[in-house]
This record gives sequence, C-alpha cells and structure tokens, in this order.
Amino acid sequence: MKLGDSSEDQLISRVTRRLVQQEDVLVGPGDDCAVITLPSGDLQLLKTDCVVEGVHFYPNESGERVGWKAIARVVSDIAAMGGTPHAFVVTLVLTPDTTVDWLDALYVGMQKCADAFQLSIVGGETSSAPTGSANVISVAATGHVQASKLVLRSTCNVADAIYLTGKLGGSLVGKHLDFIPRLQPAQWLVENCKPSAMMDLSDGLAKDLPRMAKLSDVSYEVDLSSIPCSKNCTINQALSDGEDYELLFTVSPDMVERLGSDWPSSFPPLARIGIVKEPSIPPTKLDGGWEHFSRP
Amino acid sequence: MKLGDSSEDQLISRVTRRLVQQEDVLVGPGDDCAVITLPSGDLQLLKTDCVVEGVHFYPNESGERVGWKAIARVVSDIAAMGGTPHAFVVTLVLTPDTTVDWLDALYVGMQKCADAFQLSIVGGETSSAPTGSANVISVAATGHVQASKLVLRSTCNVADAIYLTGKLGGSLVGKHLDFIPRLQPAQWLVENCKPSAMMDLSDGLAKDLPRMAKLSDVSYEVDLSSIPCSKNCTINQALSDGEDYELLFTVSPDMVERLGSDWPSSFPPLARIGIVKEPSIPPTKLDGGWEHFSRP
Repeated sequence: MKLGDSSEDQLISRVTRRLVQQEDVLVGPGDDCAVITLPSGDLQLLKTDCVVEGVHFYPNESGERVGWKAIARVVSDIAAMGGTPHAFVVTLVLTPDTTVDWLDALYVGMQKCADAFQLSIVGGETSSAPTGSANVISVAATGHVQASKLVLRSTCNVADAIYLTGKLGGSLVGKHLDFIPRLQPAQWLVENCKPSAMMDLSDGLAKDLPRMAKLSDVSYEVDLSSIPCSKNCTINQALSDGEDYELLFTVSPDMVERLGSDWPSSFPPLARIGIVKEPSIPPTKLDGGWEHFSRP
Repeated sequence: MKLGDSSEDQLISRVTRRLVQQEDVLVGPGDDCAVITLPSGDLQLLKTDCVVEGVHFYPNESGERVGWKAIARVVSDIAAMGGTPHAFVVTLVLTPDTTVDWLDALYVGMQKCADAFQLSIVGGETSSAPTGSANVISVAATGHVQASKLVLRSTCNVADAIYLTGKLGGSLVGKHLDFIPRLQPAQWLVENCKPSAMMDLSDGLAKDLPRMAKLSDVSYEVDLSSIPCSKNCTINQALSDGEDYELLFTVSPDMVERLGSDWPSSFPPLARIGIVKEPSIPPTKLDGGWEHFSRP
C-alpha cells in the first residue's frame, strides 16, 4: 500500500500510535502544537510545519511571500493554543538551481514576519535537494503559554457555541501567502473570553471542524448561511479551499453575550456559525477540504 | 547566481546576516544548536536538521535505519553543546508513491532512537511532495543545558589540545545510518573535564575543524598520523567522508593528563590530534569535506 492510497488522518494516526511520550509531555501529537512541561514547571509549546514548492506555493512565487507564509503558519498554530511565539528554526532543502536572489528574498519575508510578531529566527539547516525535487522550507518553533491560558482542540462541550474569525475561501487567489496569523485575537480571547476549544483553519472548515469534534467526542450543527465567504467565493469554496488561517473556536453558552459585545472592532469580524451537539446527533454535512495524499 | 555557484558556508552567512535576535537569544545561528534563555532563567537548546533522499540516504534504504539516523543526528548536535535531548518534532515531505510499510519502519527507527536516549517525539507535520521529488524528513528538537555545562564551538584558546572520539571515515559504507550519537561521552566531558570548545563532526574533519577555528579566531596544527581512521579507510577518507558524528573538542593544557587517565574505557577511544595555534600561524592543510551546493 502506498501513501496515495490512504488519507492524511489515517496515516498520522497510524504512525503516531507508535510514539511513546515521557512523563513531561502534556499534549503529544494531534493538536495544533505539542505541550511540554519544562523543568521549571512552565509550559512550552512545540510545533513543526513546512511549505513545499508545488503544494503550498508555485515555483514562480516571490521568495518574500513564501518566507512570510512559512513563519506565519507556525505563528498561527501557536496562537491557536493561546500561546506566544518565541524561537524559530528553519530547515531549507533546495535544489542547486535555486537562485541566490530567491533565497535572499525568502529571508527578507521570514524576518518581516519575525519582526511583526517579535519572535527570533535562531538557526537552521540547509541541505541540497536532488535536481528536479521540490524545494522545501520546514519551520519549527517554541512558544510560551500560561497553564490558565492553554486551549486545546479536544475540549469543547455539548451546547457550546461555535465561532470563527474572518471570511473563508479563496486562499488560492493569493490570500494564503499574505495572511495575518490571528495572534492578537487569540490572545484577547484567552484573556477575556476563554474558548472551550480552539484551532486554526488550515485544511478547510469541512476538514477541520470534524477533526475538532472527533477529538472532543461531540457532534455539531452548523448554519451554512452564517459562514462568511471571501469575496467572489461560494460556500463550497469557503468550506473546501483550506489555508484560511482563521481561528475556529467554541465558547460556553454563558460567554456568547459578552463575546458579542466585547469583541474589538479592530479585529477581523466574528461569526457564530453553529452549536456543539451530543455525539449521537448526525453532524451537518460539510463536503470538501484539503487532502494531502489521497489520489482522485 | 544560483546556489550551485556558492558554498554552503557562504550561503548560510549571507542569509543569517539578515536575522535579528530578541534579547533572550544567547547563541543564534552558527553553532551546533541555538541557545535561548527561558522566562525561568533556564537555558534551552533548539536545533533543526534533516535527512534527504538521494543526499543523506539512498532511495532503497530501510525506513528503520533512516528513522534512527534522522533522530540521532539531532541528538548528536545537542550532545555537542553539553546538553540533554528533550522534545522532538518531525516534518515529513513524502511522495504519494512512498509505501506505508516504509513509513511504518521509519517510525520504528525513530522511536528506537527516542527510547535509547529517553526523548519524546511529540508531534509532527506531513505534506505530500510532488511525484519525482526526493523524500525529506526534517527533525527539530529542544534540549536542556545547565549554564555551567554549555560548550560552544567558538571558545577554544591558543595552546589548547585538540581531541576527537572514535575513528573517522567510511560513513558511506553504512556507518552513517547506525551511528551512536556521543551523548554519554559528551556528558561525561562537561561533568569531568569541561572542553573549551566542542562540536560534532558531520561534514568531515577537513571542513569542521576550520569552522571551529574560524569561529574561535584561532589556527591549528594537526598531526595527521594521529587521526584514527576507520577500517579500510585512508587518511583522505577520514578527513573528507563526513557523517562521522564523533565529537571534536579542545581542552586547556592542564586538563590533558586528567583526560588521558580518567577517560572511561567503555567509551569510544580518544585521540589527541593536535594543538590550537595563534591565528597568525598557517593551519595544517586539510583537504576535502562535504559540500552541499557547490558543483564540480
């Protein structure tokens, strides 16, 4: 059997089953980040991610935009746990035909994102790739999170309201390269109106909401007409395109009024899209979402 | 200009110049690991690395050996700073034609190395690679180090003795996939006979000793006949093959006797190969070493 015959979720669950965690690992594989207890007792977030030529960016794309995206994706994951990004490292696997100008631009974009979110790119590794290979930029990072602010994907409760920030769909017309990770809104949320569960939307709502529900052992009802679609996007694109990098989160019913009145107007708009249901209720059908390995 | 027209060291120095570090970064790019001060005041090591099909392993190589190597390389870097490996994350970029059996074996090998060194693989990311691309396994990790045990590459002094563990050369006949990272010897050293500088040998002594000397602003004299060569290896192979994953370190002259008498016999043999010299002295000529981008 080849990877192309399996779904990404199946593969991940297959391989992560084998992993054995030491006692200081609070959250292992399966959430936006891992959570580790440091010797001091503080919690640390750890995340790895990548952008691959031909998958996450086109070969002719500007290095600066690719660099921004590579760092911003990881900031988005750390934000979704209620954390603050800290130290980043970058593995580059590049063909010898890559231009030095493109590499320079990549670092301009990465440092721009580092400046915007006050994080440090502290090191990296470079390897050549055989000619004909896709270029790969893999980014790993640590983040801080206070125990009282930590939010997981797996902890939403029946009757919680389901929210998302911003508008969905249309990533492929360019948004996916210039998006602003929702660090500020996420930090406001954990401070003021702590979500019961949260994640960032990377593979499309149709893929990511079922993941959150499965991990929390719940179901959901979604009002499709309440999902804000990006300009010129259909609801199918909003559900399926992926790479929205918006926050998907749930709050307990008693938080709904406060969230409605206190959400800062400087933040991207907030949409209440549904409600968490008992696991026995069939979830609203959501078609689509990004699938890495399965062949048509 | 393309990457193939430049050396790896030139490229790294070109791109890392742009990076701006926040105040808590004690050591940025250029050493085996970055060193960051945590909010608690403790030091943390952070490292990223990768193995690439066609560069670090052959396409027909067993997944288990590749998995061991991917984790062990990073353990070796953390060891070389005087640290202890802690939490690891893995980015996989794989073509859809990769077999599930190979992926399973990869995780068997990774977990085997995790067990051997009591570290946790806490998460990861998977992406498809376009068909025809090389498979990439990128590994990032945190490690602990006590401030009094931290050893850098850049801190050797004139008159220090230069040592290495084990035998060099012959990585390509298989050693590079099954090597034992020198975590125990490195921890013994920082505890008992603290080196003035240390690094792990990944690109060959001919490449790595000049790097250490350059960072420390010193020169060196090496007695080539004192370098232990692996079975059936010439001195040229010992200098050039790379992927030895042995420790290269320096100690002050007053440590030499103690090191000679106290080095545990259960460890790989120790060789004193030379002496650190004033920067004005021309270094012993060492030809070869692994170069990622330069074309012949």
